[in-house]
Amino acid sequence: MAGEIEARLKALDLALPEAKPALGSYVPFLHLDRLLFISGQLPMKDGKVAFAGKLGADADLRQGQEAARLCALNILSQAKAALRDLDRIVQLLRLNGFVNAAPDFADHPKVLNGASDFLVEILGNKGRHTRIAVGCSSLPLAASVEIDAIFAVD
Amino acid sequence: MAGEIEARLKALDLALPEAKPALGSYVPFLHLDRLLFISGQLPMKDGKVAFAGKLGADADLRQGQEAARLCALNILSQAKAALRDLDRIVQLLRLNGFVNAAPDFADHPKVLNGASDFLVEILGNKGRHTRIAVGCSSLPLAASVEIDAIFAVD
Amino acid sequence: MAGEIEARLKALDLALPEAKPALGSYVPFLHLDRLLFISGQLPMKDGKVAFAGKLGADADLRQGQEAARLCALNILSQAKAALRDLDRIVQLLRLNGFVNAAPDFADHPKVLNGASDFLVEILGNKGRHTRIAVGCSSLPLAASVEIDAIFAVD
Repeated sequence: MAGEIEARLKALDLALPEAKPALGSYVPFLHLDRLLFISGQLPMKDGKVAFAGKLGADADLRQGQEAARLCALNILSQAKAALRDLDRIVQLLRLNGFVNAAPDFADHPKVLNGASDFLVEILGNKGRHTRIAVGCSSLPLAASVEIDAIFAVD
Repeated sequence: MAGEIEARLKALDLALPEAKPALGSYVPFLHLDRLLFISGQLPMKDGKVAFAGKLGADADLRQGQEAARLCALNILSQAKAALRDLDRIVQLLRLNGFVNAAPDFADHPKVLNGASDFLVEILGNKGRHTRIAVGCSSLPLAASVEIDAIFAVD
Repeated sequence: MAGEIEARLKALDLALPEAKPALGSYVPFLHLDRLLFISGQLPMKDGKVAFAGKLGADADLRQGQEAARLCALNILSQAKAALRDLDRIVQLLRLNGFVNAAPDFADHPKVLNGASDFLVEILGNKGRHTRIAVGCSSLPLAASVEIDAIFAVD
């Protein structure tokens, strides 16, 4: 039986994609005591970066927000792979949000809201998190956004 | 009765500004067990970014240091909002410092010292922290610095 | 008597360099309960940055990987200074990897593998970590890479 959180995903007609392997010699998640660390997730879909390009240059705000939302979905996939049951999440403690951004871009918080809004929608109060949002000169595979997470879990 | 740390702020004639709400769909702080996470703070004053611009381009080192100090003051405001009493701080564990910086800027540590020196001045040994200092292509609202923090608390 | 991990370093003919003091008013490591925080480490050797320059501009991939490996060695030096015995490491939980990178650089994961591969070689399964890899517009002292770490320790 799927838990409450997966039921909410289903109600939104959202399937968790398969958790992606790491893009290098590291692991996608680690669980120690009550903390679950998730590696930086890119906006990957079907094995490819779905949203590439630089905010303030060749990617617009809506694309950035879609990219952030997809990073968040991939974070949930990794959390599911780590915990088996997403209902074991006690609190999303932190999102670190990195936006591939031109030197004069200033709307990083709006981009990251694509991830934050989605996670609050799915996780409810347990999804209300602390956050950073900063601009990167470039990101792996030219992705528009990279986001990592730390959860408190049971 | 205000605690020891607030007395030190007062002795320096510094008032804690009101803790700012988050610039998006997240929360400014979260407290789990002995850890207190503070979201990335900008050099905001009276609701506006007080120090904007890029180090190595249109902002000089002194402005960067003032920006970092103001981020640190805002971190203390959030810690106060979270804990009510700053004397509950056991140790500032980590500052992550992000400097809005031109491609050839190299003095990120000097910029961040504006925050680090201030926090050691206010918190004493409990303010001695680990740190990163890196350069960002851009930051929210064109701010010169963004800093987040993790505290150990009672 | 040196522990298992230091024996592995010796077998590779690698000496841990002396742990560097912080480049500012902070500390290189902090230990709280089961967590050990290490400040951002640069590719320093004999008191100087051994690998400077921007990936995708004036530093090539091999240099970036060497830089990342040297950051990782300096992380181990700090862990040794903090713990006295590296065998007290339970798990490397997180590496945050910051690459000094041109706007069109995309191989950040390959750069960071220089650190990740080395740490798995030295620490075995305890070295398998979560990670972020992002591009910075600039880094302290024009270093090619900066990496910080969080360990779980006994």
